[in-house]
Amino acid sequence: MAEPLRIGLCGLGTVGLGVVDILNGHGRLLAERCGRPLSLVSVSARDRNKSRGVNLSGCDFEADPVALARRPDIDVVIEAIGGSEGAARQVVETAIAHGKSVVTANKALLAHHGIALATAAETNGVSLNFEASVAGGIPIVKTLREGLAANALERISGILNGTCNYILTEMERTGASFETVLAEAQALGYAEADPSFDVDGIDTAHKLSILTSLAFGTAIDFSSVHVEGIRNVQAIDIAYARELGFRIKLLGQARRIDGRIEQRVHPCFVPLGQPLAAVAGVFNAVLAQGDFVGRVFLEGRGAGRGPTASAIIADLVDIARGLRVPTFAVPVGRLTRGQALPIADHIGPCYVRLRVLDRPGVLAAMTAILARHDVSIETMIQRGRAPDEAVALVMVVHETKDSNLASALAEIARLDSVVEQPCRIRIESF
Amino acid sequence: MAEPLRIGLCGLGTVGLGVVDILNGHGRLLAERCGRPLSLVSVSARDRNKSRGVNLSGCDFEADPVALARRPDIDVVIEAIGGSEGAARQVVETAIAHGKSVVTANKALLAHHGIALATAAETNGVSLNFEASVAGGIPIVKTLREGLAANALERISGILNGTCNYILTEMERTGASFETVLAEAQALGYAEADPSFDVDGIDTAHKLSILTSLAFGTAIDFSSVHVEGIRNVQAIDIAYARELGFRIKLLGQARRIDGRIEQRVHPCFVPLGQPLAAVAGVFNAVLAQGDFVGRVFLEGRGAGRGPTASAIIADLVDIARGLRVPTFAVPVGRLTRGQALPIADHIGPCYVRLRVLDRPGVLAAMTAILARHDVSIETMIQRGRAPDEAVALVMVVHETKDSNLASALAEIARLDSVVEQPCRIRIESF
Repeated sequence: MAEPLRIGLCGLGTVGLGVVDILNGHGRLLAERCGRPLSLVSVSARDRNKSRGVNLSGCDFEADPVALARRPDIDVVIEAIGGSEGAARQVVETAIAHGKSVVTANKALLAHHGIALATAAETNGVSLNFEASVAGGIPIVKTLREGLAANALERISGILNGTCNYILTEMERTGASFETVLAEAQALGYAEADPSFDVDGIDTAHKLSILTSLAFGTAIDFSSVHVEGIRNVQAIDIAYARELGFRIKLLGQARRIDGRIEQRVHPCFVPLGQPLAAVAGVFNAVLAQGDFVGRVFLEGRGAGRGPTASAIIADLVDIARGLRVPTFAVPVGRLTRGQALPIADHIGPCYVRLRVLDRPGVLAAMTAILARHDVSIETMIQRGRAPDEAVALVMVVHETKDSNLASALAEIARLDSVVEQPCRIRIESF
Repeated sequence: MAEPLRIGLCGLGTVGLGVVDILNGHGRLLAERCGRPLSLVSVSARDRNKSRGVNLSGCDFEADPVALARRPDIDVVIEAIGGSEGAARQVVETAIAHGKSVVTANKALLAHHGIALATAAETNGVSLNFEASVAGGIPIVKTLREGLAANALERISGILNGTCNYILTEMERTGASFETVLAEAQALGYAEADPSFDVDGIDTAHKLSILTSLAFGTAIDFSSVHVEGIRNVQAIDIAYARELGFRIKLLGQARRIDGRIEQRVHPCFVPLGQPLAAVAGVFNAVLAQGDFVGRVFLEGRGAGRGPTASAIIADLVDIARGLRVPTFAVPVGRLTRGQALPIADHIGPCYVRLRVLDRPGVLAAMTAILARHDVSIETMIQRGRAPDEAVALVMVVHETKDSNLASALAEIARLDSVVEQPCRIRIESF
């Protein structure tokens, strides 16, 4: 059997410990699959003496992760620190500069510095693998980079944040508000104390920007992603979605339309019966559409110790087997700068909910504004009567330019009889 | 850019033509992804002059596919002839013996000769890739061989035959009989004139035996697969399934249980709400369960020109990129001979349907037989009354040993009041 692959692990949080679990538990299996042992040589973490419940007796401890990344007796560095700057970035840059391959789960780092890091990896002839950075245990990076390599990809849609999907699933199941379910999710450890990265869609946007690059051969362009989170989704919207034959999901979506690249993250109405609508709880999923393969759908656990570590070890196995693919599927020099299609130019149907005073003439005023902005109504629901009180008015509007609808709703919001900012949720079809 | 990868293609049926489509349509894209052009040098087919609607002007024609497989100016041979013997086998054996990598979609060939071919490929240092042989465009071979390589896999369940899934879907949609829907499927080209390979489960069994080997590191053992097809599924069973909260699917399933390997292909009751239950029409899907990653579910088109060719080209891209993995994930010498767990030892719940004469004492006789064989009833449905006429009697029985239920049903079938062979369909849970 060939020489062991010598591994350095930076970070002993949930992800790092999962990696140790697998290396300890499946040493023989992995050696058979790789044709060589995977040997954990050194670990680095903030606190050396913390009790972690895993056996680290076979490896030494390095206080400084950047020093670990320089060590000549290490072939591959796993970066499991997190964050787009600071130690994580330094570790990755240092390891690559020292001719070591890197495995990381760090989507923020890739979204912000992916191209520079890929360039460095290419220059130094090493791998930069990041399967765990998107959709946890689902092998979506490998699927896009290799499995669907025969196709020009046309569209990619994913449920990429388990926290948001859990919250939306629980809101539907219980009828409770966003705030209530978020608090429960925090108590259960499914949401961070500061949930902004997740619920405001930033985490999904990081991941989407990576998938977009892999799918379309474009340089990562995180700043062009249109991002809306799920804070404004109300229980009433979830109920209306159901009534209209949909379920609300936070999707990250990318499409190539007439040579322009659209990237958007926002809550969507997904038709019931679509695989993405059935993805519940903390699961993640990706629907990829290629010109020859058609639609391929992948679903699995998007986070957690086991699934994330599974993806990191798969990246290690590739390196141990000598499999190297350009970081973003083609050499960095071949990545194009896709012109961004702004959300204002997005065209699609939409759900709109207003709170209006139940007075004569309200409907006439609103529909006139919509007509003036070229927005046509498919369905309208108003229930019950409560003269001079506020009632919910729900509409589904036909395919319309996003900016037209936005202008119309801004104007409608200024009507005296409209008592709340209009709520709009785009409707997707697949 | 590096030297082109020189390709020989044997077989210009649906699959072969799909390969030509992609090579012609995506030449530049593929060259970027591979770092070298994919060049179709020669094709072989039975009829040289048939009009096929694709441009083959860039390559020559070889009348004898085995001669093509020997040519020194070819690096990789694509076998798209089909069948486990004859020309297909000879082409693959010849190509490997001449130091060429092989890409094939031929599940029958692999199920019967996979180990010998893998041994030859290993000896000759070439790749034997077969992504297209299972589940068409879904990258399930790559997922098992690489993407989930960190896991000991525990179970794999797949809808692997689009013809059967189409027939079952249509039977549910229309309420028509198997025979009626089969005839329609034949008229539409979704089923062969001789449908036996598909509807009797053999095709699914071929594919399952390949997945089992990849998942568990065992030598392919096609002869141990328990195989039942869908000919005996009746419209009434589909209706009862629905009523009981299930949908009938033909699954190929493999599990490792106490060191033994269970492989079975038969119609199953799949709980509604499970992703496998929602797979409709000609789509295929695989649910894989690993010890760290948990469940991963993949769905896509399982056949057809585009999806199958997509998988073949992905295999070519791997070869062009220099990625080589042992044929069945570990070297042939490391594959174990898994002891087979026979269907008689399978334990699970089951749906049973009988046609019995509506007479006093029938139920007492039946339930006594079931009790004697240790089979316990969870649900029983008998509707309507028709004294002395035959009525349907439906039961769900609790987890029971397969052979116990088989013995009980054999005894029940001999009762005077039982007018038809009992129908049983195993119930799966995931």
